[in-house]
Amino acid sequence: LINEDINQFRDEFLKIHPYDQSEFFEAQTEEVRYLIYSYLSPEEMADVIEHVEREKQSDFIVEMNPTYAAQVLANMATDDAVDLLNDLDKNKVASYLTIMPEDEADEIKDLLHYEEKTAGSIMTTEFVVVNTHMTVKEAMRHLRKAAPDAETIYYIYVVNDDQQLIGVISLRDLIIAEGDLTIDEVVNRQIVSVSVGDDQEDIARMMRDYDFLALPVVDFQNHLLGIITVDDIMDVMDEEASDDYSKLAGVDVDDVDQNPITAAKKRLPWLIILLILGLFTASIIARFEETLEQVALLAIFIPLIAGMAGNTGTQSLAVAVRGIATGEFQKHGIVKTIMRESITGMITGITCGLAIWLIIFIWQGTMFLGFLVGLSIAITLFVATISGALVPLLMNRLNIDPAVASGPFITTINDIISITIYFGMATMFMQFLL
Amino acid sequence: LINEDINQFRDEFLKIHPYDQSEFFEAQTEEVRYLIYSYLSPEEMADVIEHVEREKQSDFIVEMNPTYAAQVLANMATDDAVDLLNDLDKNKVASYLTIMPEDEADEIKDLLHYEEKTAGSIMTTEFVVVNTHMTVKEAMRHLRKAAPDAETIYYIYVVNDDQQLIGVISLRDLIIAEGDLTIDEVVNRQIVSVSVGDDQEDIARMMRDYDFLALPVVDFQNHLLGIITVDDIMDVMDEEASDDYSKLAGVDVDDVDQNPITAAKKRLPWLIILLILGLFTASIIARFEETLEQVALLAIFIPLIAGMAGNTGTQSLAVAVRGIATGEFQKHGIVKTIMRESITGMITGITCGLAIWLIIFIWQGTMFLGFLVGLSIAITLFVATISGALVPLLMNRLNIDPAVASGPFITTINDIISITIYFGMATMFMQFLL
Repeated sequence: LINEDINQFRDEFLKIHPYDQSEFFEAQTEEVRYLIYSYLSPEEMADVIEHVEREKQSDFIVEMNPTYAAQVLANMATDDAVDLLNDLDKNKVASYLTIMPEDEADEIKDLLHYEEKTAGSIMTTEFVVVNTHMTVKEAMRHLRKAAPDAETIYYIYVVNDDQQLIGVISLRDLIIAEGDLTIDEVVNRQIVSVSVGDDQEDIARMMRDYDFLALPVVDFQNHLLGIITVDDIMDVMDEEASDDYSKLAGVDVDDVDQNPITAAKKRLPWLIILLILGLFTASIIARFEETLEQVALLAIFIPLIAGMAGNTGTQSLAVAVRGIATGEFQKHGIVKTIMRESITGMITGITCGLAIWLIIFIWQGTMFLGFLVGLSIAITLFVATISGALVPLLMNRLNIDPAVASGPFITTINDIISITIYFGMATMFMQFLL
Repeated sequence: LINEDINQFRDEFLKIHPYDQSEFFEAQTEEVRYLIYSYLSPEEMADVIEHVEREKQSDFIVEMNPTYAAQVLANMATDDAVDLLNDLDKNKVASYLTIMPEDEADEIKDLLHYEEKTAGSIMTTEFVVVNTHMTVKEAMRHLRKAAPDAETIYYIYVVNDDQQLIGVISLRDLIIAEGDLTIDEVVNRQIVSVSVGDDQEDIARMMRDYDFLALPVVDFQNHLLGIITVDDIMDVMDEEASDDYSKLAGVDVDDVDQNPITAAKKRLPWLIILLILGLFTASIIARFEETLEQVALLAIFIPLIAGMAGNTGTQSLAVAVRGIATGEFQKHGIVKTIMRESITGMITGITCGLAIWLIIFIWQGTMFLGFLVGLSIAITLFVATISGALVPLLMNRLNIDPAVASGPFITTINDIISITIYFGMATMFMQFLL
């Protein structure tokens, strides 16, 4: 199809939505991609690249001829170009910026400074701004001119002579307003803005709660620096959900696409760490070998106790991590949350403990073994519930977001705690078991 | 503050964003809420209720005087009112609909029929629609009139005389277009629409990929029924992320707010099921009691093997569930995915198996115990990786989305499999262990 006719290809390709273009483009072999580069202008290619998955964008840019690549970057939305460049090494970035038209390069350079995952790194500088002195009619005219380059024209931001943000007008209000009024008379001064250093997760939350389509980004002197649009925020929400999820599972869940060897390489570090932690658990049991040789029956409840500890810990971990992510926890305090989890752990612990005591009594006919297992489960659930909540809350308080708060790690720690409690008590009460 | 002065309260309250109003409102006691109902008109209250958390909206509606409640419902965005009414029992819904103005009641009734989580249930019928025969100027005039009630005015949908959707014009394009042209001449016919029965998760994915602010919803004859806006989709994304996450953890993660007793009640069913499954594991080990009494040392590796099985299973479960959610899996097939996971499981299994063999050999000095544990781990990781991916994929293929594909369940199943493999092999090769 492609090799045949450049005009026919362009006709059909440019008619479809850029997202579909990108899907088609990604599915092609390297040779076909080179053909596509030669068939499309940098502007057209920029549209395609913007819709390619984030992680793959830089691979395609690198395989283009550098002059073409620089032009594609210059034609992309500034915020998307910056995201892409952040994946490349500094020398490459510098060389692209040198070939690019100067004003585009400057815009990109400004945005490259901001730290990852902050408002600055996801904002775009392509927005419509008007001055308070303009009339509605002048503003409308300005808007028509600015529309083709702007990321959104549905909010028009209003600044004073010092470029400080003083309000916003929605296109909706601008359309209904009388043409002779000045912007000063129609501007909505109740404006919500975010600071350039704010975390992207907080911004996503704000946008969802307030139902905004875009939010202005300001510096400490309230100068308008850029805007963040809802389509970027949807990507952020997706990314953050994946992150939380990956943490709970102890695996990068975005590895769906990869070949088995890459996938195994990603999972192995975790598994090796857990293997070593598991050996630690084994060495604890080994210390109780004597107890175990006297009452081999003890061994049969090991998976039950360790499993229950792991599952409860994961439950309270998940509640805590999600509570932090959705901002629910900021409303309550850390102490109140831990108190709450303690009581929950106590209730579930006592219930499950009593249940297992009863079941083992009926099953094995031994009163004391059931009591021992039941008590171990009760204490274990109590401790595991607290530790599952405490670890992520402390990490969050200390402003670190580490793998330590991940599911498999908490599970293994709770294994160790539960086994120690179980065998410790068994050894202590040995005379009743024999 | 409130008790003092109705005018001052209204002044300050109505100045802030509805989301902030709702936050303030939710924090009040019942008595204060009753005061607020008497201070605010139903239109003003509708704004507040729309921004209250979904789960709590119905509680507030129920405590209002029914006539006031019906008026509040009539003034809410139709899709939000429908969501709320879905939480109430049928008699209550019917009584509200009877008191309500008839046209509002009809709109709501139309939407109440749609199944939960489909396009129909999240769409709104408040959109701007124009006919192909109108001129741009007429369309603009129509838009100004329709603007106050419409959920979005940034896309204007175009229908033919049979009310069939034939295209869309963005407000952006309408503003730039010549006033004398007919809509037929400027309409964009490359329109993406969704069907009224489509799943909300698929729609969220489309909106994210194509960067739309709204999507039209049509029936099988392509009649335009409603639109879905991006703010509703952000709520859907949040909800779906919570769902997936809850499933992996085996707990409803939205229970952050609840008191410990409610939280414990929610977690206990899971824990009891796992307790019973754990007893099943115990009964398997109990069958190998003889083996265990001969070589008590076997017991010390139980948590290690079960733990590794659980963790690997959770990893591949998470990759599968997330792959289904983001649509990555629809591109590959189920067979290819299982093949990929099998190879990944084989690689991680052999690596971990060899590592543990070596470590146990050095630690305990016994060649064969290490070999046994290593081989068990290798087989276990292989099986657990496959089962973690297979269960959710099969469930998805069968169009069921049950708790069976949840983390704790998979973990416990993998516990049972791994223990059986371990003790089965130990019994088989008993002569080498003694």
